[in-house]
Formats: sequence, C-alpha cells, structure tokens
Amino acid sequence: MPYVNIKITNEDVTPEKKALLIKGATQLLVDILGKNPATTVVVIDEVDTDNWGIGGETVTVRRKQGK
Amino acid sequence: MPYVNIKITNEDVTPEKKALLIKGATQLLVDILGKNPATTVVVIDEVDTDNWGIGGETVTVRRKQGK
Amino acid sequence: MPYVNIKITNEDVTPEKKALLIKGATQLLVDILGKNPATTVVVIDEVDTDNWGIGGETVTVRRKQGK
Amino acid sequence: MPYVNIKITNEDVTPEKKALLIKGATQLLVDILGKNPATTVVVIDEVDTDNWGIGGETVTVRRKQGK
Amino acid sequence: MPYVNIKITNEDVTPEKKALLIKGATQLLVDILGKNPATTVVVIDEVDTDNWGIGGETVTVRRKQGK
Amino acid sequence: MPYVNIKITNEDVTPEKKALLIKGATQLLVDILGKNPATTVVVIDEVDTDNWGIGGETVTVRRKQGK
Repeated sequence: MPYVNIKITNEDVTPEKKALLIKGATQLLVDILGKNPATTVVVIDEVDTDNWGIGGETVTVRRKQGK
Repeated sequence: MPYVNIKITNEDVTPEKKALLIKGATQLLVDILGKNPATTVVVIDEVDTDNWGIGGETVTVRRKQGK
Repeated sequence: MPYVNIKITNEDVTPEKKALLIKGATQLLVDILGKNPATTVVVIDEVDTDNWGIGGETVTVRRKQGK
Repeated sequence: MPYVNIKITNEDVTPEKKALLIKGATQLLVDILGKNPATTVVVIDEVDTDNWGIGGETVTVRRKQGK
Repeated sequence: MPYVNIKITNEDVTPEKKALLIKGATQLLVDILGKNPATTVVVIDEVDTDNWGIGGETVTVRRKQGK
Repeated sequence: MPYVNIKITNEDVTPEKKALLIKGATQLLVDILGKNPATTVVVIDEVDTDNWGIGGETVTVRRKQGK
C-alpha cells in the first residue's frame, strides 16, 4: 500500500534503469516494513534541468560549469 | 482552498475526461466539507507507463502481459 | 492504480468525512476513467492553519479576520 | 536541506524566469530560517492548462473566457 | 540531488526502520543512476490509517476487517 | 493560481516565521510571474528529523554528530 515518488533530472534515464528503480524501491518496502508489493506504487518524475534548482541555481547552469 | 492532486498513467485521457475529473473532485470537496470551489485547486499529473510501477514492475511491462 | 492526494486544513474533519472523501474520490476515478478501485490509493493530508497560506497570509490569520 | 516544489501552469515561463524562481525561493529559506542554500532543492512543475483546475473548471476553459 | 518521498501508514514504524528506509532509498539512487548520496534527500510521510484509502475505504476500516 | 509546497524539518519554526515564508513565497510568484496572490496557495510541511534523510542518514543522527 505504500506510495513512493522518486524525482530525478531527465538526463539519460533509460526504461531499463527506471524499471530497476521501481523494482528496488518496491523490494525495499517489502524487506524493511513487510509491505505487500502488489499494492506498492512507485512513480518516477523526470524533471527538466531548467526546472531543478540546488544551491540557488538551475542544474542546467551547474552542468555548464561542470558541477 | 483545498488542493487535490490526481496522478494517473497517460493512457488516452482526453481533455473532456480531465475536465470531468476536475469538476468531480471540486464538487466532492464542496459536498463533503463545504469548501469554497472558487479556491479549490485540482492538478492532474499524467505519468508515462515506463515511470509508473506497481507490484515491482512498470505499467509498460504489465500492459504487455495483458494486466 | 491512480493515486489521489487531498490536502485540506485540519479544521474539524471527522473520520466519517474522511471516509466519504476516500469513497468519493475512488468512485470518481472508476466513473470517469474506468480505473480499478482495488488499486486506487487516496491519501488525505490535514494541514495546520499556521502552515497553509493563501493570498500571502496564513489561514490562522484569515480565520481571525472572519474570512 | 529544505525542499520546495512550485507548481504553475505552462504558459510562457522562460528559463530565465525559472532561474529567478529558484534563486528567490532558495534565498527565502536562507533569509527566514537560516537554511544552507547548498542543500536546498527547488523543483518547478509546469502543468498543462488542461490539467489544472480551479473553481471546478480547467484553466484552458477559463483562459477562453478571458479569466 | 534526487528527492524521494515515501508515504506509509503510521503503524509501528520505528526510528530504526525509518533509518533503514532512508539508507536503502539513497543507496538505490547511487547504485542504479550513480547519483551523489550527499545531496540525495529522502522524506518519509507517516499517514494516519483514517487518512489512507485503498479500494474506496480507509485502512482503519480494513484493519478491523482483518485485511 | 500557483501552488507552492515547502518541506522543512520541524526544528523550532515559529508561526511568525511560517507567516513570513508564506508571504515571501507568494510575493515571489507575483514578482517573477505576475501571478494573482489571491489564488496562490502555499503549504508548509514540517517533517520530524527521524523522517528526513540526506546523505543516507537521518537528520536526527546528523544533528547528534553536530552536522
């Protein structure tokens, strides 16, 4: 029954990697809390680097600076 | 003043259906809690089937299996 | 499989009203989009009036002003 | 360490304006709560006007009515 | 830089288990996407069983039915 | 019409500071995007330090280490 939301920047995240994130997050809830995987929902949001900020600047700017 | 967020997979959800979801969710808050519809916000997020997981696998995979 | 999040202020919302919100939101997704209620999740967040702002002021302040 | 999520309709929001939102929201947390900007995350979600409702109708409909 | 939000019902989740969820979710982002753990944020929301619905009814009701 | 959600740890955040966060976030949307403050919603979530993780550990643990 848990709900997990993973927000990441949209930088080359393949469907295979997203499937692994979903599998891993679901298994984590099973292993630690004994939750039922059948009703565990995982939603991945991929966010444009213009729309993600850290340290007061966008990831777009940070990537150009090699951060 | 309530805020409602509806997350669904992006599988053929027409503008008409989204308008009905918004109308219905707003009316629900009016009917049950007496909220003011003028400041009731509803946001619908349509999520790619690669990005939605249930039962540890993506909806993309489940759809292929006829689930 | 949908996920619905309803955020409201924590002003006398009884368990009975919360049960009606959950029932109504789930039914909405069934009626409009044909979703499976068994995997439709609804989460209600009740927010302190000090922590909810509209029009640039807290709901606590607005309630004192009779708004 | 704070996390700020800003949801707006996707109506001509330039990268420059998004950078200003991120800078301003981060500074707000620094000024009011003394938070460390280096670990302050801001995520902007731009939502289609078909998917945003207020007053029980979509923003798409409201824009056509000149609201 | 990722942000992970885990929503679960507030049923006997110890600080130790929450620490394990945080450790595991962070490691998942490191392992699958090579993210920097130092800026990976995990927030756990514990939700009252009256406020969580699945199948159109609250978890409080379901627990009484032995579900 | 924007919706802003601010998540912070629940460490001595007074009602006065929360009012300033709400005022400042609303003003930011007015200044940068010309949004209408009357329908701008700000919700602050205060999260227990046991439930907030960064760098793979809880803020509770980090505070004990003087971080």
